[in-house]
Amino acid sequence: MMIPLEAGSPRALYEQIYEYLKKDIKKGVLAEGSRLPSTRVLAESLKVSRSTTQMAYDQLVAEGYVEAVPHKGYYVLRLEALIEAEPELSGPFIREREEGEGKAEIDFSPRGIDLTHFPYNAWRKVTKDTLADNKKEMFLTGSPQGEPALRDAIRGYLYSARGVNCQAEQIIIGAGSEYLLMLLNQILGPGRRIAMESPTYKQAYRVLESLGCDMVPIEMDEGGMDVRFLEESAADVAYVMPSHQYPTGIVMPILRRQELLRWAGRKDGRFLIEDDYDSEFRYKGKPIPALQGLDGAGKVIYMGTFSKSIAPAIRVGYMVLPKPLLEIYRRRLGFYASTVSRIDQNIIYQFLTGGYYERHLNRMRAIYKSKHDLLLSKLKQLEDDFEVCGEYAGLHVLLTSKRGCSERWMIEQAWKKGVRVYGLSSCFIHKHQDKQPSTVLLGYANLSEDQIEKGIELLGQAWRE
Amino acid sequence: MMIPLEAGSPRALYEQIYEYLKKDIKKGVLAEGSRLPSTRVLAESLKVSRSTTQMAYDQLVAEGYVEAVPHKGYYVLRLEALIEAEPELSGPFIREREEGEGKAEIDFSPRGIDLTHFPYNAWRKVTKDTLADNKKEMFLTGSPQGEPALRDAIRGYLYSARGVNCQAEQIIIGAGSEYLLMLLNQILGPGRRIAMESPTYKQAYRVLESLGCDMVPIEMDEGGMDVRFLEESAADVAYVMPSHQYPTGIVMPILRRQELLRWAGRKDGRFLIEDDYDSEFRYKGKPIPALQGLDGAGKVIYMGTFSKSIAPAIRVGYMVLPKPLLEIYRRRLGFYASTVSRIDQNIIYQFLTGGYYERHLNRMRAIYKSKHDLLLSKLKQLEDDFEVCGEYAGLHVLLTSKRGCSERWMIEQAWKKGVRVYGLSSCFIHKHQDKQPSTVLLGYANLSEDQIEKGIELLGQAWRE
Repeated sequence: MMIPLEAGSPRALYEQIYEYLKKDIKKGVLAEGSRLPSTRVLAESLKVSRSTTQMAYDQLVAEGYVEAVPHKGYYVLRLEALIEAEPELSGPFIREREEGEGKAEIDFSPRGIDLTHFPYNAWRKVTKDTLADNKKEMFLTGSPQGEPALRDAIRGYLYSARGVNCQAEQIIIGAGSEYLLMLLNQILGPGRRIAMESPTYKQAYRVLESLGCDMVPIEMDEGGMDVRFLEESAADVAYVMPSHQYPTGIVMPILRRQELLRWAGRKDGRFLIEDDYDSEFRYKGKPIPALQGLDGAGKVIYMGTFSKSIAPAIRVGYMVLPKPLLEIYRRRLGFYASTVSRIDQNIIYQFLTGGYYERHLNRMRAIYKSKHDLLLSKLKQLEDDFEVCGEYAGLHVLLTSKRGCSERWMIEQAWKKGVRVYGLSSCFIHKHQDKQPSTVLLGYANLSEDQIEKGIELLGQAWRE
Repeated sequence: MMIPLEAGSPRALYEQIYEYLKKDIKKGVLAEGSRLPSTRVLAESLKVSRSTTQMAYDQLVAEGYVEAVPHKGYYVLRLEALIEAEPELSGPFIREREEGEGKAEIDFSPRGIDLTHFPYNAWRKVTKDTLADNKKEMFLTGSPQGEPALRDAIRGYLYSARGVNCQAEQIIIGAGSEYLLMLLNQILGPGRRIAMESPTYKQAYRVLESLGCDMVPIEMDEGGMDVRFLEESAADVAYVMPSHQYPTGIVMPILRRQELLRWAGRKDGRFLIEDDYDSEFRYKGKPIPALQGLDGAGKVIYMGTFSKSIAPAIRVGYMVLPKPLLEIYRRRLGFYASTVSRIDQNIIYQFLTGGYYERHLNRMRAIYKSKHDLLLSKLKQLEDDFEVCGEYAGLHVLLTSKRGCSERWMIEQAWKKGVRVYGLSSCFIHKHQDKQPSTVLLGYANLSEDQIEKGIELLGQAWRE
């Protein structure tokens, strides 16, 4: 790789390297999945010190352009990050967004949600009501765990919609699931060995790893986390998504759930973290109750969020602590103030108890089901070459090449037609990964029905060539 | 101490002990500052195991009724906690709030702010504007560090009002200073030895201690943290409040600031955390620029908040990272999503840039100054017996008995007249404290001028007896 470097430039050498690589990634010259030369090789070829290339790579990793895979090297990441992360205004770490560049015409992002049908009027109304009458108390410090009334409303919703059994006092409301994981890490005590399915929700993995947890990936079978491997891993906490595993879409069968609960019950201090991130959306059969509802021994930490069901920027999540952990929290961490403003809590409280939330969920479920059904019917035309799974729930499906085409090829071919699909491999946390998967994720929440139709049309063309 | 225990009760023994003690504290039978019997002595006298009394005490500590002083024992805390912390709804850890009980007629809380003069109309207007036109992007994930526009507005404000020199890219907006300390702890790396002045802002101390930092209290002289003791402490991070130390009100002189900066400069990895929590309010002389503005070496982490200047429940704070720490943050922790909703960030942005914030600050400064001046003039009638310090800034003053009356006596006497004042000792983090201080804190922000007048009248009576 030749990168033209200016010795006399006001920009540091590492910045020049970083800028050059970034541009190539954004242009697609370096495609998703490409492996970059090692920092040593690049340093030698450019005649700079290795710390210079290291800094450039670190910056690319920090900004989500590139991923460091231990023992393997640096790989160009999916371009999704470029769209969802906001650009900086100024300074050496600028991430400019040129108009049109790096933008797909049709983006099957698995992280999008439909905001065209957001109940803006209802939101404005509950906000207005919350701020009426100069309520002083809205601006005063509230309860550390969150407003009692909102916690009670969440408890009621969780009980009827998810089969979660808890009291309002077990609920902690926080500014997003990442903050709640930070708090939970303190409750569990630092340095815990935590098992996660692989592939999994990488963001939770990153948070827990950055907090110093000893993360172990566990193989999955068609029922989800394999309890034999979990047992062998010597982990004492397992993070699972039983209702709809991300990204595989696997629904954990009842027998596996019971096995997990038995595993947790066999030792003091073992816990299950149940991430129930998108269970609101299910398009077939009865809703699947939460694992927490089966737990009679105080072993399940239930985590929920309004990011999918209301909106990501709301920044409100909650967790339900089993009693033994609640006691630890109160004793050692009860002094932490709530991270969610009292006004926002009241807005959500009114949204829930005023019937808006239920109406909104019902409406969105119908809209998403219609998009889902359209997507599946369109995918039929690819069924000779591709297999669909993870359907009938959530906001994305998986598509696997029956001919063993690589994920990278699928992404690159789609990209040439202006369609963005997402590789499964970015969700893996295995240290060693033998071969590139042949699977991509197709999210449909943020697309119109026309876009879905056209997108699949284009994918058909892209992958036939 | 005799506590009647019921062996056959559905309530555990420790809960019965906890309930009994809690009731006595709330009734005032156990006054603030009283020492509880040791867990061993109480266990022997009640014929229960020591772990039972320990659990009861732990619960009282967790709920803020009692404080554990290492090597000394358990002391009943100031009753403030009973007012500001919200009660639970149900369950074994109920903290009921009976009507009228434990409520002072006039409460000189140093933590209150004036919300009578909050610009409710302006707040409603900027909220309404933010939600107008169904702006989808308000509900989408934003920048991890916070909205660029808001960061730029904060940068401008900090530059002109506080002399802080930074770029918007160095600012991280977060859901309150406690969350920002959690993040900062990750940036600095775990287990750091952190020096704090004693007495200090106890909440920050609790957060850092709970995160596993090795906290060392440093003696103060009339200029604040004593740098000789800091040097001896082997700490490499020092937490200071140079503009207006809490609770002493000391303004750190320029020479001491330079000494601190030199201390930080002598070793790689040394940093100063500047907590600038209430510098907006100064009633005499020129505003004192932030320590950060003197720092040419990237050694100061500046922390600010809207809790005092707007309202505590807003839950928005910010920190300014020096470049070396910014790089670590971006490389290792840049994936953390923002903890503040985009809507709230936009509301504050409009509040700042629409001129509302400046107007509000000017108005509040005048209101607080008027309260402050009245308080000082009223305190003149006590000047034979009491000395005032920490005046002319912030939202409280300190009052010290010239006759050496104990803080506890002052609090108890005041309480009998329905007036609540706050002991200095709860702010100490020294391991050994030789004698009870003779100083109480008088906050005035939340009181009307009539209340201030009447309160000092009553205190005069209470302390003459």
